[in-house]
Amino acid sequence: MQVVVAKRLLQANDQIAEMNRKRFDAAWVAAINLLGSPGAGKTSLIEALVPELAAKMRLAVVEGDLATTRDADRVAQLGLPTVQINTSGACHLDAGMVASALDSLTLDGLDLLIIENVGNLVCPSSYRLGEHFRTVVLSVPEGDDKVAKYPTMFQRVDSLVINKLDLLPHVRFDLERVRADVKVVAPTVASFALSAATGEGIAEYTAWLEQRCEQIREGKG
Amino acid sequence: MQVVVAKRLLQANDQIAEMNRKRFDAAWVAAINLLGSPGAGKTSLIEALVPELAAKMRLAVVEGDLATTRDADRVAQLGLPTVQINTSGACHLDAGMVASALDSLTLDGLDLLIIENVGNLVCPSSYRLGEHFRTVVLSVPEGDDKVAKYPTMFQRVDSLVINKLDLLPHVRFDLERVRADVKVVAPTVASFALSAATGEGIAEYTAWLEQRCEQIREGKG
Repeated sequence: MQVVVAKRLLQANDQIAEMNRKRFDAAWVAAINLLGSPGAGKTSLIEALVPELAAKMRLAVVEGDLATTRDADRVAQLGLPTVQINTSGACHLDAGMVASALDSLTLDGLDLLIIENVGNLVCPSSYRLGEHFRTVVLSVPEGDDKVAKYPTMFQRVDSLVINKLDLLPHVRFDLERVRADVKVVAPTVASFALSAATGEGIAEYTAWLEQRCEQIREGKG
Repeated sequence: MQVVVAKRLLQANDQIAEMNRKRFDAAWVAAINLLGSPGAGKTSLIEALVPELAAKMRLAVVEGDLATTRDADRVAQLGLPTVQINTSGACHLDAGMVASALDSLTLDGLDLLIIENVGNLVCPSSYRLGEHFRTVVLSVPEGDDKVAKYPTMFQRVDSLVINKLDLLPHVRFDLERVRADVKVVAPTVASFALSAATGEGIAEYTAWLEQRCEQIREGKG
């Protein structure tokens, strides 16, 4: 009984995700689902990307949070169209929440929509939002054991950003151990190591992001 | 329909939690549910507490993880009875999982059972395990906005441990801002700031833990 209901919920989510995807494709917008633990630096990554990307493409952001508009306030200060989703305590975004957010956003003319999910290394990976691709942010102080301990998340993304590289001298964190775990757990995932705070390594991830957007738009052409 | 099922699931969980509690009380064992984001330092906190506590009380640990036995391996090295719960991808422990773990553990003779939950700042707060009290671990590099952004978790615990105080010089983190948010969001929660890595501040939290265990055992007497 419980399993049947769970399946129904997921099916409904997938149907709405498919509708979101059609809206993105009709407007020629690439959409990314940005995932990671609380405090991994998802909003900081957006703040670091915008100066690199804003000259080349038109961006908008959907911010998912349990409470407060703090992340959305930070992003709005960058001058980007921003919609806040308050999940009222829910531990992940779902496709229906994103569909509602899209009603408040003009997709035409955009190139990339960044959807920042709720801080959570487990639940959000199970909910498709209609995005074209996913990046998970893992920060150095979280520890180098997280890929092995939370494998599902890493298996369901296209790329991994290892953030807060500037803290490497101050904590025990073996980059090679993480890369070795990724090779075993999620061998097709593209890995990047950077510091959103200092800007180190941002260019490589930005280049990957631009290339993915290009591929998505070509696929629609 | 969905809401009805969710309520039934929670009721079943609460019933099993009540049974777990009776088993703890019958054996005169205090039980703590240790919560926090992935990488907040829950296992490191246990490693820091054991040298302080092991001389005064008999401890055992239940470790909850999605995958691997890495945390349980670390705790077992401390010489404590340890049971690993593999949640098979579930984002929180529930009372039934803990009940199964208790079957592999001798409660008689123990003073304190530490149950380390899955790394997640949202879902585990909704599931009672039968514990007498709860501590949430928040680490400095996660950022000083987490109490406001994830209020439910902080409202459902007895104490807050702000961990990784040794990283304060390297990140933006305003301790007073966190304490001010706690006063608003969860005014009855006891706050501690410490570094499990250096041992700074461990004594204050240990004293609180001992006092809570004492109170619980007196309440049963």
